[in-house]
Amino acid sequence: MIETIKFEDWKKLDIRVGQIKEVKDHPNADKLLVMKVDIGNEIRTVVAGIKKYYSKEELVGKKVIVFANLEQKELRGIKSEGMILAAEQGDGGKVILLKPEKDIENGSVIR
Amino acid sequence: MIETIKFEDWKKLDIRVGQIKEVKDHPNADKLLVMKVDIGNEIRTVVAGIKKYYSKEELVGKKVIVFANLEQKELRGIKSEGMILAAEQGDGGKVILLKPEKDIENGSVIR
Repeated sequence: MIETIKFEDWKKLDIRVGQIKEVKDHPNADKLLVMKVDIGNEIRTVVAGIKKYYSKEELVGKKVIVFANLEQKELRGIKSEGMILAAEQGDGGKVILLKPEKDIENGSVIR
Repeated sequence: MIETIKFEDWKKLDIRVGQIKEVKDHPNADKLLVMKVDIGNEIRTVVAGIKKYYSKEELVGKKVIVFANLEQKELRGIKSEGMILAAEQGDGGKVILLKPEKDIENGSVIR
């Protein structure tokens, strides 16, 4: 039985629309990409394990959903300042990024 | 300054891909819709204030992102068993639903 989340706890999460501006290979990790993501009022560095599923070319310009106040984590020497949300089918199977279903400004808040 | 969320707290949230199967007007509220949403292993009733932004016809069949273990809430007499995630531009301005950017099975988990 999964526990229930209170609405006041959900409101603490800062999840927003972002746009990928730049994508590079992580210098020290085969499966990771290092991205610059515009989240409206700032550009964040985000490290993500999606290299197997998306090409760099495909990612640049994409609107994504960024969890902006997750505790920051250093991944192989580069600090990730957010997490890009994706749906995962099966365990380590298909990975598909989330997006707003129509265009909306960077920084728009998820509710 | 917004507080930081620990990864272990993020993991407690059950957010999944769902698909809207049925949409009706809420019998007691002008702005609310009552939907049946397939979240993979079950069908949930979800009440949402998106009537101003989406037509019923447009919603049926849509893949959406469902926060499945938010505390349940009764909205004008109908219990909502989840929340459909949307991006909001401005306060009460544009409201755009989130979706997986390519098709993926209902019930796929957001990470």
